[in-house]
Amino acid sequence: MNVPFTKMHGLGNSYIFINVFDFPVEEDYLSELAIAVANKDTGIGSDGLILIHPTGDADVGMRIFNNDGSEGKNCGNGLRCVAKFAYENELVHDKQFTIATKAGNVIAEVHGNRSRIEEVTVNMGKPILEREQIPMTGESALQVVAEPFQVENYHLDLTAVSMGNPHAVFFVDHIEEAPLTTLGPVIEKDSRFPEGVNVEFIEKVNDQEIHFRVWERGSGITQACGTGACASVVASILNGKLEKNKEITVHLAGGDLYIIWDTDDIVWMRGKAETTVSGTFYWERND
Amino acid sequence: MNVPFTKMHGLGNSYIFINVFDFPVEEDYLSELAIAVANKDTGIGSDGLILIHPTGDADVGMRIFNNDGSEGKNCGNGLRCVAKFAYENELVHDKQFTIATKAGNVIAEVHGNRSRIEEVTVNMGKPILEREQIPMTGESALQVVAEPFQVENYHLDLTAVSMGNPHAVFFVDHIEEAPLTTLGPVIEKDSRFPEGVNVEFIEKVNDQEIHFRVWERGSGITQACGTGACASVVASILNGKLEKNKEITVHLAGGDLYIIWDTDDIVWMRGKAETTVSGTFYWERND
Repeated sequence: MNVPFTKMHGLGNSYIFINVFDFPVEEDYLSELAIAVANKDTGIGSDGLILIHPTGDADVGMRIFNNDGSEGKNCGNGLRCVAKFAYENELVHDKQFTIATKAGNVIAEVHGNRSRIEEVTVNMGKPILEREQIPMTGESALQVVAEPFQVENYHLDLTAVSMGNPHAVFFVDHIEEAPLTTLGPVIEKDSRFPEGVNVEFIEKVNDQEIHFRVWERGSGITQACGTGACASVVASILNGKLEKNKEITVHLAGGDLYIIWDTDDIVWMRGKAETTVSGTFYWERND
Repeated sequence: MNVPFTKMHGLGNSYIFINVFDFPVEEDYLSELAIAVANKDTGIGSDGLILIHPTGDADVGMRIFNNDGSEGKNCGNGLRCVAKFAYENELVHDKQFTIATKAGNVIAEVHGNRSRIEEVTVNMGKPILEREQIPMTGESALQVVAEPFQVENYHLDLTAVSMGNPHAVFFVDHIEEAPLTTLGPVIEKDSRFPEGVNVEFIEKVNDQEIHFRVWERGSGITQACGTGACASVVASILNGKLEKNKEITVHLAGGDLYIIWDTDDIVWMRGKAETTVSGTFYWERND
């Protein structure tokens, strides 16, 4: 099967995009196709596959498949790429439009012109702050803000935020000294987080900027985590280190994201999306 | 810069191919381009870059760049892909032709038709068997065949062969029990091999077949190593386990190769080459 595709990435988080408006696909091979395209040697090479499809629920729809073939719900870096692709390929007419995802509809706004969108702003929704819903064990406080958290011999202060997925945020004085490889895997699987947790270390630079490093649940150290960047800004505001309604530049290993937590409690994320390849994948299906 | 490319692989060893007959390139950015295309996230994803170029020395020329930007001399899996590409794209007219490489000219023969070459046979040259030229330290024997070799608590029998790069070959009764991860990295850097060594474990199945697993110098465990498969057949013949002039099927983790060591001492390797992608790479050069 000859599969036309575009490859894009947001801060190094890469996906193969198939435009289902032009190239219909069949449900029964999608999982297999995601595994095939993601393979660096026998396929193209990516973190997964994203379908951009017609939908009655929004201006355009997206479905995301991980490189193990499982279907995901949402991904901030992938969403920015979908928005860029949809506008550049005239699947949508206005610069602000809605994208249907498995986690609900998302508002996106593209920045640039029809021939080249440079950046995209995405509505990441409201953070979830209630302990049970993060989810995290323990009693008392409704929110988990600067809560003493001991792990091995470290006495840390934990702030926990869910952006649809759980994040444990810790503040450090120097980002280079963040105990990412030592504590990341331990906290990820700590029994206090029944569904596991993404682990983020933050250094405040000034009132507009933070440094950010992440240990992602199931993936380990990655270059960028959109929901983690959002969770980190929310955590910083909950701790009185930053202010609501102000744009914060988050310096990730893979590049910068610009986050606002507004007075309606909505988190907005702006960042780059880049197209790297277009072509045809010659798929020899094993069946 | 918009770079037209084809992606191919031989037993999972993948390269991005640029047809320099159609798309001239400049020396000053080749190393940078190789690093860029090889990146799975911000590029395409491959083990490196191969240029197919006009030459006065042979029917077609190839240059190979590793994913760190360094230029290599030769690669059996890459050569098969070059031959397939050259014939399918009518860069050559006959099914047998010569390819110029940094390691000298190579004879290749393609099997299939103009629209689809399935397999390629490549002349891998004569093995080098003299101890000093492998290179390996030590005195006495001109060749290193079933020589007692102690490493840690293992008492092994070593046969050493160079196919332009050094190989240490060991026979085992059951390929699944080959101590690849334990002894591979130790033998690779053993001081008796002043330039390091590729480490191969072989199980003879019958007079026509062997199982093969490799720890590659500088890369660790890989799916396939063309020169290693050749060295293993040569080593098996030197030990009286297999015969010259007979085609041997080598079962590698990434697939099969068919090797003959003929009575003129030339090693012939036949195997698949597969095209997976064609397209355009949108290269944003950092300079």
